[in-house]
Amino acid sequence: MPELRQEPVTKKWVIIATERSKRPIDFNIKQDECKRGTCPFCAGNEDKTPPEIMAFREPETKPNERGWWIRVVPNKFPALKKNGCQDLLNPFEESFFQIMTGIGAHEVIIESPEHDASLEQHPIHQLQEVFRAWRERHNSLMKEDAIKYVQIFKNSGAVAGASLEHPHSQLIATPLIPDVIEAELKGAQHFFKEKGGCLYCEMNQQESKKNERVVAENEGFIAYCPFASRFPFETWILPKQHQASFSLLDESLLNQLSIIVKETMQKIVSSLNHPPYNLMLHTAPAGYTEAPYYHWHLEIFPRLTTVAGFEWGTGIYINPTSPETAAKYLKETKHRLKNLKKGEKL
Amino acid sequence: MPELRQEPVTKKWVIIATERSKRPIDFNIKQDECKRGTCPFCAGNEDKTPPEIMAFREPETKPNERGWWIRVVPNKFPALKKNGCQDLLNPFEESFFQIMTGIGAHEVIIESPEHDASLEQHPIHQLQEVFRAWRERHNSLMKEDAIKYVQIFKNSGAVAGASLEHPHSQLIATPLIPDVIEAELKGAQHFFKEKGGCLYCEMNQQESKKNERVVAENEGFIAYCPFASRFPFETWILPKQHQASFSLLDESLLNQLSIIVKETMQKIVSSLNHPPYNLMLHTAPAGYTEAPYYHWHLEIFPRLTTVAGFEWGTGIYINPTSPETAAKYLKETKHRLKNLKKGEKL
Repeated sequence: MPELRQEPVTKKWVIIATERSKRPIDFNIKQDECKRGTCPFCAGNEDKTPPEIMAFREPETKPNERGWWIRVVPNKFPALKKNGCQDLLNPFEESFFQIMTGIGAHEVIIESPEHDASLEQHPIHQLQEVFRAWRERHNSLMKEDAIKYVQIFKNSGAVAGASLEHPHSQLIATPLIPDVIEAELKGAQHFFKEKGGCLYCEMNQQESKKNERVVAENEGFIAYCPFASRFPFETWILPKQHQASFSLLDESLLNQLSIIVKETMQKIVSSLNHPPYNLMLHTAPAGYTEAPYYHWHLEIFPRLTTVAGFEWGTGIYINPTSPETAAKYLKETKHRLKNLKKGEKL
Repeated sequence: MPELRQEPVTKKWVIIATERSKRPIDFNIKQDECKRGTCPFCAGNEDKTPPEIMAFREPETKPNERGWWIRVVPNKFPALKKNGCQDLLNPFEESFFQIMTGIGAHEVIIESPEHDASLEQHPIHQLQEVFRAWRERHNSLMKEDAIKYVQIFKNSGAVAGASLEHPHSQLIATPLIPDVIEAELKGAQHFFKEKGGCLYCEMNQQESKKNERVVAENEGFIAYCPFASRFPFETWILPKQHQASFSLLDESLLNQLSIIVKETMQKIVSSLNHPPYNLMLHTAPAGYTEAPYYHWHLEIFPRLTTVAGFEWGTGIYINPTSPETAAKYLKETKHRLKNLKKGEKL
């Protein structure tokens, strides 16, 4: 069973999940282990994953058989596990060394039956289905008492931590509010108390007005490279109307989200020549669904630089590309693609 | 000039240092650009670096010529720069978007004139000289009013962010107390107020007594895989006697430090087949040199796993190797090496 352990000084939690590696030195799962035919996420290989949790599939087709276009399965090597025994959830004291049972969930959302599809290539209706699956699993897990947060994320490319190339996103439900979300809640709450509004709403308005860092915008959403981008071409996508939790996303917004994600990812992928990337959903934890100060959003990190000693030691990131330059570059992608001479690379 | 920008919600700072890449898409400096003969850190190539800040060298030899065994030079592509104009240090307000001039320093400590040397291969007297250079540059920079913290670190291997393979460490002096150190100070101060002691001193004692996670120990220092290790084989090295700042390291302790660093790094390097790694000094910032609750230490992260979407989204790390298993494995390295059959790999 995985464990959650708390660092005694900073009180930050880590997950010790030893079942994810057989021997202490088994690392570096190579992405090329996943080939068409043997890929557990491909249509026809449904028996190579644990039984599905849910799927969007043709009527008359059976679970764990062909006929699906979105399929959600448990992660074969879960970082956190479902477990009936909730008593163990209470931290027990071993001096100042706190341990919690690693209760939670770890699921894979297979975004397409096609091995070679990718997020930005999905037709809009398929992207909508991806986000519907996210919403359904998020909302279902958030109903469980033990779950305080549902982290949905996507790793694309081996450098970004993907061990299988078949398009998929993941979800890990945690029995505590993660540090990153805690810090966002605290900062946003502080602003709300001082100025009486949602800081994210304010930022959206300023970014839209200035138009220096905007990458894409539609009726429901705005995408920009944030003012204090940690990484080159870091891009956030936020709903324009105030909304603390992803769980509240309605069908009209879901459509707008699909459109802006496709547009933004197309710009990133074509400008930066298919970079590895991580995409993270930041949303309200349990008890904060209607918070007037928090604002759900997506963060996209193309993985172009290496996190090294200075960043680990200080928590301060060194970014060699200003968000203004990055946004301009992304925004002009279409224009650049049009004007490219034959055979010329971006 | 580099900039420091503050993320409006979480108040975390980032460094925007655009001079470090010429074009917005220039990334991925390959390590093989550094070859013997052309390597700017090799003896004989002193003119390929900016003029040296200090060196330990033979008497009668001149600065920026051969004859040195430790050489400190400014980083050619500094993340932060020295600058006379301290007025700009005060954050100026552009709505909630805070910017600070990127004042500070960025230096390289060349650990040997030999290209193929590595930290664990240095003779003890050479390692002592490395730490003397660290101490001298740390203490010199900490005297400057604008400097609040001196981060010393080492990146080894391309995966860990090293762009040159010649053995070197780096130093970045910052005009603010980094977030990671702030969190450690806060946690340690909290414990001190509640229990009246240094939490790190307490941890050292418990780890030594339990001996479950200890990797090495000598008169002055203890090395262990911390209870809440974020990474497989993460190892910390701490002085046994209470000492908040690395600046207070005396010659006797410096000798003990050299011995335990060599032993620990030898274990890591031989057990894990020369992994890329980051090594970071955590020490007291300006004003905390004599703090009764803070405790300087080294943190070593072998880079065996990939930081991915879940870690970026939550701040919670998933570690597939328990620190108990890692410590046991490292501790038994010598034994395993001895019993290895001819041609057999670890």
